[in-house]
Amino acid sequence: MSRTLIAIDDPDDPRIAAYRDIRERDLVGRQGRFVAEGRVVLNVLFSTSRFAAESVFLRQNRVAGLGELIDRIPAEVPVYVAGAEVMDRIAGFEMHRGVLAIGRKPETDGAALLDALPPSALVVALSGIANHDNMGSIFRNAASFGADAVLMTGDCCDPLYRKAIRVSVGAALKVPFARFDDADALAEALEARGFSLLALSPRGARDVADIAPAERQALLLGSEGHGLSAAVMERLPTARIAMTEDFDSLNVAAASAIALHRLWRAGR
Amino acid sequence: MSRTLIAIDDPDDPRIAAYRDIRERDLVGRQGRFVAEGRVVLNVLFSTSRFAAESVFLRQNRVAGLGELIDRIPAEVPVYVAGAEVMDRIAGFEMHRGVLAIGRKPETDGAALLDALPPSALVVALSGIANHDNMGSIFRNAASFGADAVLMTGDCCDPLYRKAIRVSVGAALKVPFARFDDADALAEALEARGFSLLALSPRGARDVADIAPAERQALLLGSEGHGLSAAVMERLPTARIAMTEDFDSLNVAAASAIALHRLWRAGR
Repeated sequence: MSRTLIAIDDPDDPRIAAYRDIRERDLVGRQGRFVAEGRVVLNVLFSTSRFAAESVFLRQNRVAGLGELIDRIPAEVPVYVAGAEVMDRIAGFEMHRGVLAIGRKPETDGAALLDALPPSALVVALSGIANHDNMGSIFRNAASFGADAVLMTGDCCDPLYRKAIRVSVGAALKVPFARFDDADALAEALEARGFSLLALSPRGARDVADIAPAERQALLLGSEGHGLSAAVMERLPTARIAMTEDFDSLNVAAASAIALHRLWRAGR
Repeated sequence: MSRTLIAIDDPDDPRIAAYRDIRERDLVGRQGRFVAEGRVVLNVLFSTSRFAAESVFLRQNRVAGLGELIDRIPAEVPVYVAGAEVMDRIAGFEMHRGVLAIGRKPETDGAALLDALPPSALVVALSGIANHDNMGSIFRNAASFGADAVLMTGDCCDPLYRKAIRVSVGAALKVPFARFDDADALAEALEARGFSLLALSPRGARDVADIAPAERQALLLGSEGHGLSAAVMERLPTARIAMTEDFDSLNVAAASAIALHRLWRAGR
């Protein structure tokens, strides 16, 4: 390993200011930046991610085991290293993993993203997904089943929130995504480009296991509780996941796994 | 609503001792008790749960909206009520939901549970699932797809841990479960009762979507990372979930959703 590592001894060092009080900043936002954490996520960041990194911050005792990852970090990205005590003081809590990076997140234009998709494409469309666990899980499933993009309404939570990235095991850095004002704008943009939309709902008309996906297929998922608006549901073909009738219903991330698996497998 | 509610004004009232320092007790265990929280979970506790409740504890401003739930609580179960400030002081943090119950959890004997299953049955078997989110999600999926029981190795985490119950939306209170020493003991107990075991793994031999479930079918899921032991994998039929090759792999809960959906639907 020939990489130069920059030792940080002072918790107030301005070079690692972006890592300060990580949890508190999760709440107020980071103005165009995101925090990636953990070896697996950083491996995505430095291989198949569509985002650039600004810096990496490692705990001293993790460095020896991360040679392969460190070799992947571009030369222009500084790699800072600190002992556990200094790192915990900077982050504001105990950083068990001790593997962090800051990335830049330019907004993606939805129309441009859609225009760049191949003729045969599978797209996930999200309306009102407010929970970071669900968001991260949906991205992980989208990556596992080769979705080309994730589109979302403006009221969805940020897929680049620290926890969402972690739950997605990096898929949020890989699968392109963009926001639209609302579900109607999103549906119109997809339909204008020849996508067939299928809205998943416990009250859907057809069993998703019977659906033959279109060449350009979009799967629309609504938030739990509220689900999709009546107006959207009325206009679109709908599908349900068959299940027992005596229990609540599936979590939206679990539903996405089942539906994406089906659409991906049937579309091959 | 004719129910008598017991007002709690003193955070040190011994009648609500079981609700004290809820988070800290999550870590040390509760000696045969569990905490259920939220309206949906308490509805399960007082309808289809297999466990008895010891008491209920509600925040004053939630009472008006919970008439239907309160009507379900057996007369012998005391219902305590407190203002937000008293409740937060008792619990040790801000109880956003303000809907809690304490239940009793007797251990279930694995052999007795298996002996009581119907001739046609679907069972989930877990090895080394240590994450409470995954455990809760797997129970939710098990309930959604009518699994008759969940069996687990001794190293699995507790499905009645507060967060696991919450993530399961109460399924952990409903679907019977029991522990076995290890995966071998678990597999033997199932095979002795005529169950076909199918081990799910990224390296599984057959596509799970092609599996026709047996009359008595068990789906064996291992922890992420470690997966199932080589010895178990060698002895059992294995299945995989088809997915793209260029991303990590599915979360074990998402995998359980896809596999259980398939086995349940194909078995009807």
